[in-house]
Amino acid sequence: MECSSIALIGSGRMGSFHGETLSRRLPRARLAAVADPAPGAAGRLAATLGATGQPAGLGDAVRAYTDVAEVWADPEIEAVVIAAPARFHAELIVAAARAGKHVFCEKPTALTLADADRAIDACRASGVIFQVGFNRRFAPDWSAARALIDAGRVGTPRLLRSLTRDPGGFDPARVAPDTIFNETLIHDFDTLCFLNPGATAVEVHAFADALVEPGWRDRGLLDTAVVTVRFDNGAIGIAEACFEASYGYDVRGEVLGSGGMATMGGGRRTGMAFSGPEGRLVETVRGDQELFAGAYTAELEAFADAVRTGTEPPVTGEDARAALAIALAAAESVRTRSPAAVSARSLTEPAP
Amino acid sequence: MECSSIALIGSGRMGSFHGETLSRRLPRARLAAVADPAPGAAGRLAATLGATGQPAGLGDAVRAYTDVAEVWADPEIEAVVIAAPARFHAELIVAAARAGKHVFCEKPTALTLADADRAIDACRASGVIFQVGFNRRFAPDWSAARALIDAGRVGTPRLLRSLTRDPGGFDPARVAPDTIFNETLIHDFDTLCFLNPGATAVEVHAFADALVEPGWRDRGLLDTAVVTVRFDNGAIGIAEACFEASYGYDVRGEVLGSGGMATMGGGRRTGMAFSGPEGRLVETVRGDQELFAGAYTAELEAFADAVRTGTEPPVTGEDARAALAIALAAAESVRTRSPAAVSARSLTEPAP
Amino acid sequence: MECSSIALIGSGRMGSFHGETLSRRLPRARLAAVADPAPGAAGRLAATLGATGQPAGLGDAVRAYTDVAEVWADPEIEAVVIAAPARFHAELIVAAARAGKHVFCEKPTALTLADADRAIDACRASGVIFQVGFNRRFAPDWSAARALIDAGRVGTPRLLRSLTRDPGGFDPARVAPDTIFNETLIHDFDTLCFLNPGATAVEVHAFADALVEPGWRDRGLLDTAVVTVRFDNGAIGIAEACFEASYGYDVRGEVLGSGGMATMGGGRRTGMAFSGPEGRLVETVRGDQELFAGAYTAELEAFADAVRTGTEPPVTGEDARAALAIALAAAESVRTRSPAAVSARSLTEPAP
Amino acid sequence: MECSSIALIGSGRMGSFHGETLSRRLPRARLAAVADPAPGAAGRLAATLGATGQPAGLGDAVRAYTDVAEVWADPEIEAVVIAAPARFHAELIVAAARAGKHVFCEKPTALTLADADRAIDACRASGVIFQVGFNRRFAPDWSAARALIDAGRVGTPRLLRSLTRDPGGFDPARVAPDTIFNETLIHDFDTLCFLNPGATAVEVHAFADALVEPGWRDRGLLDTAVVTVRFDNGAIGIAEACFEASYGYDVRGEVLGSGGMATMGGGRRTGMAFSGPEGRLVETVRGDQELFAGAYTAELEAFADAVRTGTEPPVTGEDARAALAIALAAAESVRTRSPAAVSARSLTEPAP
Repeated sequence: MECSSIALIGSGRMGSFHGETLSRRLPRARLAAVADPAPGAAGRLAATLGATGQPAGLGDAVRAYTDVAEVWADPEIEAVVIAAPARFHAELIVAAARAGKHVFCEKPTALTLADADRAIDACRASGVIFQVGFNRRFAPDWSAARALIDAGRVGTPRLLRSLTRDPGGFDPARVAPDTIFNETLIHDFDTLCFLNPGATAVEVHAFADALVEPGWRDRGLLDTAVVTVRFDNGAIGIAEACFEASYGYDVRGEVLGSGGMATMGGGRRTGMAFSGPEGRLVETVRGDQELFAGAYTAELEAFADAVRTGTEPPVTGEDARAALAIALAAAESVRTRSPAAVSARSLTEPAP
Repeated sequence: MECSSIALIGSGRMGSFHGETLSRRLPRARLAAVADPAPGAAGRLAATLGATGQPAGLGDAVRAYTDVAEVWADPEIEAVVIAAPARFHAELIVAAARAGKHVFCEKPTALTLADADRAIDACRASGVIFQVGFNRRFAPDWSAARALIDAGRVGTPRLLRSLTRDPGGFDPARVAPDTIFNETLIHDFDTLCFLNPGATAVEVHAFADALVEPGWRDRGLLDTAVVTVRFDNGAIGIAEACFEASYGYDVRGEVLGSGGMATMGGGRRTGMAFSGPEGRLVETVRGDQELFAGAYTAELEAFADAVRTGTEPPVTGEDARAALAIALAAAESVRTRSPAAVSARSLTEPAP
Repeated sequence: MECSSIALIGSGRMGSFHGETLSRRLPRARLAAVADPAPGAAGRLAATLGATGQPAGLGDAVRAYTDVAEVWADPEIEAVVIAAPARFHAELIVAAARAGKHVFCEKPTALTLADADRAIDACRASGVIFQVGFNRRFAPDWSAARALIDAGRVGTPRLLRSLTRDPGGFDPARVAPDTIFNETLIHDFDTLCFLNPGATAVEVHAFADALVEPGWRDRGLLDTAVVTVRFDNGAIGIAEACFEASYGYDVRGEVLGSGGMATMGGGRRTGMAFSGPEGRLVETVRGDQELFAGAYTAELEAFADAVRTGTEPPVTGEDARAALAIALAAAESVRTRSPAAVSARSLTEPAP
Repeated sequence: MECSSIALIGSGRMGSFHGETLSRRLPRARLAAVADPAPGAAGRLAATLGATGQPAGLGDAVRAYTDVAEVWADPEIEAVVIAAPARFHAELIVAAARAGKHVFCEKPTALTLADADRAIDACRASGVIFQVGFNRRFAPDWSAARALIDAGRVGTPRLLRSLTRDPGGFDPARVAPDTIFNETLIHDFDTLCFLNPGATAVEVHAFADALVEPGWRDRGLLDTAVVTVRFDNGAIGIAEACFEASYGYDVRGEVLGSGGMATMGGGRRTGMAFSGPEGRLVETVRGDQELFAGAYTAELEAFADAVRTGTEPPVTGEDARAALAIALAAAESVRTRSPAAVSARSLTEPAP
């Protein structure tokens, strides 16, 4: 069986999870290397995953690189999974594309539209596959909702909702400006687009504040936000986020169309319920890697398949660009205290 | 047992339901009269309710008036339930107050803040009870959520949501301007306030459109809207409405606070589920009078109790004024395509 | 409006509730009298209900009788609601029938089949209406399930389940022998028949024990039981009961047929859910009068309607007899440690 | 990384699924061989799984054997997964044990208690690990319920329920006698024991019939059954099965104890719901391999772990023996139309 050799770039929380997926959950993918500039970080993860992850006899262990240039130069590596901090994404995508490596990149692909476009253009110029980590599209509730939409049962979308609530425990000092839009709500912006296929966001309004950590309001923290999005087909979308929910990790979606409504997400950990003196209690999901374990695996499986077969990836750089455009408009809306227009890419804009 | 004699003003869809409640569902209230200027309308409803509604031997049948002045002059009548078209509400409240009748009025109490204030002031000056028809507060899910909030379990509210979806079948030609804000979403605006006790709305943004009947967009119809509301305690509320949902009548609420989240509304008609070849199906509620039959009864029972005992009504003219202020700001936001400030009542404003 | 004058016999827990329903919740019924042999009991309830319940001006207050013969002799009384202890039911039904009063009787109508038949025959001979208190048939989940069955969507029943769990707090010393079958599970036996219309129970097996109060096992207490019932159409029913559930009052039903499955009962108090650090919590129903308030009202409304209009009552003495036959077979199964046949009424048995 | 080499015995529906799991879903296990006496069957499955399943470069392809003796003689094979027809299970287990291969066997391990004991004894004598395929224990709802029980929150069990409903489509001619007890309900009997830890079943009653295929009743088909089980701690269990449910594959569990109730199983395919003109619809699970994909994987992962580490398997031959004893008593109850005692293994019975 053919097996794609993939390098992981970034060994943090999400990188480690993707590394485990590549080495342990996907028989048709092989984790060839881990790259991380932090001294020792790549080596530690590579050692862990090489030792307990991949089947014995597979040949080389997982290689560890501190200089990402070694990934570009490694001829065995066909593709990379980029899970570095967001500010490095665009540069890494462009470099990967130039090195002829297929690219899976965590969202956002860039922090500016110009960079997002550069990434798209570089991959197109090199002919490499470029897939983006909008994992929610691969979760069963969401893919089932989209199937209903594609089957025409939801009809023309009118109202959409997507929300993300994290379980809290963040350090306000380490939250970069506009993180709530660029890194959290960007999933919801993509979901709104995914549930409103063919439509384009045109106008955005946002209210946002520091409600979890009000002491950080003056330093510009935004930990809670509501963004409304007007699409060119008239549909109105709502994206909500809060960095702390006492009950865990909560992701939901909803689309009301002329034919009916699809709802996604419930937040139950299992189907087990306990009825006792307090009432009926169900456990709630506590983290993204718990809720979306299957979706994280499925997106990398789809990527490995696309690499192997050369087909179109199911989530593209253009999808990421569309979500980023909404995120940037939301941030602008907060700054200007007014609705903001969503920047469309000029159709005549030349590739770099 | 003492029994309040109450007149109904307005014999339309909601008036008829309130009339039935007064005559058939509330032993401690008595429907004394129905008033409606449309020739024959009051008489028909009075005949129906008198014949089959109230216990035999109760004395006078239900009286029918075409001139509301007859209500003011009828000495037996202690109180009125106003279910006339919204544009007459403020005038009727003021007249009732001057006649010394206690007032229950359907929302909105007025279409301008000045009129809402006039109504409040007239009732205060006459010392009559003034209760407003925000029935949702009396529905079990909503009162249970408020009890949790009052008990401190939800903590400080951060994100709130309230939505109303009607089952459709409306005539676009008969929808007055801004109905979606003044008559539909006003329930949701009140709910947001009810779930965020002590806070005041300060800023509003709205997107609204004709998505159910797009052919009426040019004539100014708004049948779908999303309104976001910023409160002075930082909480952000979302109110959504659509005049048509293929699955019936849908009202939901949600509040996320520092302590947890309460959710309200499910839309199931009964607890019965049918599992068959298509999957598992539950029936959905099809109309407001089905979903809120108990709440409509409970609000009038509370009013009759307040009349009998002279206590404070549970929903006041000030509550209605607060919701109207949000509704007016939402309409302004649509017109100006900008966020709008919510008008607070001047504390120094003199009573008339 | 015509209004049925009804006397209540028995002023205990259930009698008081029925008394309230008659005086306060049903405009077309009038509580004319309360009878209870315990000194002062009828008077206390009559005073309470007369004072605060029925509309002023209705004429006589609620009369109180300690001798039930006074009910039979009271010419104003058209009908009785029997909520006395079960061992008196058959005698009271027969006496009421002889006095020409229509009868609503709480389940069971008798403790032997001979008495159940006597009650049926007496009512038939007198031409009075005889309705039995199987309230569950009037609850929305159950009536909706039956409607599905009648519409043919469930198909031929194969497996049925009905269960009752009480919230506990009972006094083992006051539990009469076989109470779990005669008074608790008799509801479930009726439900199994209701969900399997046209079929007849033929064989019963029961396991029963004292599991809530194991110290009373030697004195014959049965507080937990599982009864399986074989019907003549092949369907197999399960009835379960336990006198204590830590989470409240739980009544559920289920029928699997060739076309699909209907499930009834969920046990939630409201649709409100609270998501907090422990997970997601919903309140559970705590008692029968809470869960079935509407059903208790609806069954008496149906009775009052049947009395007024002379139509067939929706639950008959024959229904009660069928459920009692299962209950007696279940008790026999426990005694003999074997399955027991269900006694059918001889078709040739003469009326008295 | 160490990796267990495992042979699959039986290449039918369940065998194929286990083969896929071993080759594609478990990095630490390696499918070394497939054995099946049907000409060509093992070869076809081995070719499929070898070609697309295991990572390239792993050395030998999957070997195919038509004579199971080749498995016993293959020195690379450490363990076997037995998914042959039930009547061969005991013999295969004994042979595997004698060949020193660890054993995972699908339920039932035998069709008589004597054979079940022989299998246990052979494994014990050889010191091989013996795990049984009660996959439900590995499903999240069930393991969460057991965790609650182990934590003491459910208290002493009083009433238990476990049910299995298959999606239908079976061929009555190919259903061996008592299949409903030995192969279907045996899962439920194990579940009742799993949810009532430490207790032993003592008495069983069963009603069973051919209700899906009533034309086969005379030929002894049993396709629908209800079995009640009395345990030595007083708890009463109910196991239900039907070979056809129009809505798919339905497995549920419930335990009511002195502290509360745990419920398991819901049957939803995803968390997505569609609300449309018919009401609210959720998809239901359609087959065991869909519902229990995770549980099937987890049980083999646990087996591979036990093989690698030499620890106790989580489901033992004694567990299988206990469930079989209930199944045999249920079949006897149907034949004798009486309750049947459950055979306990003599404590003094010598090992062979």
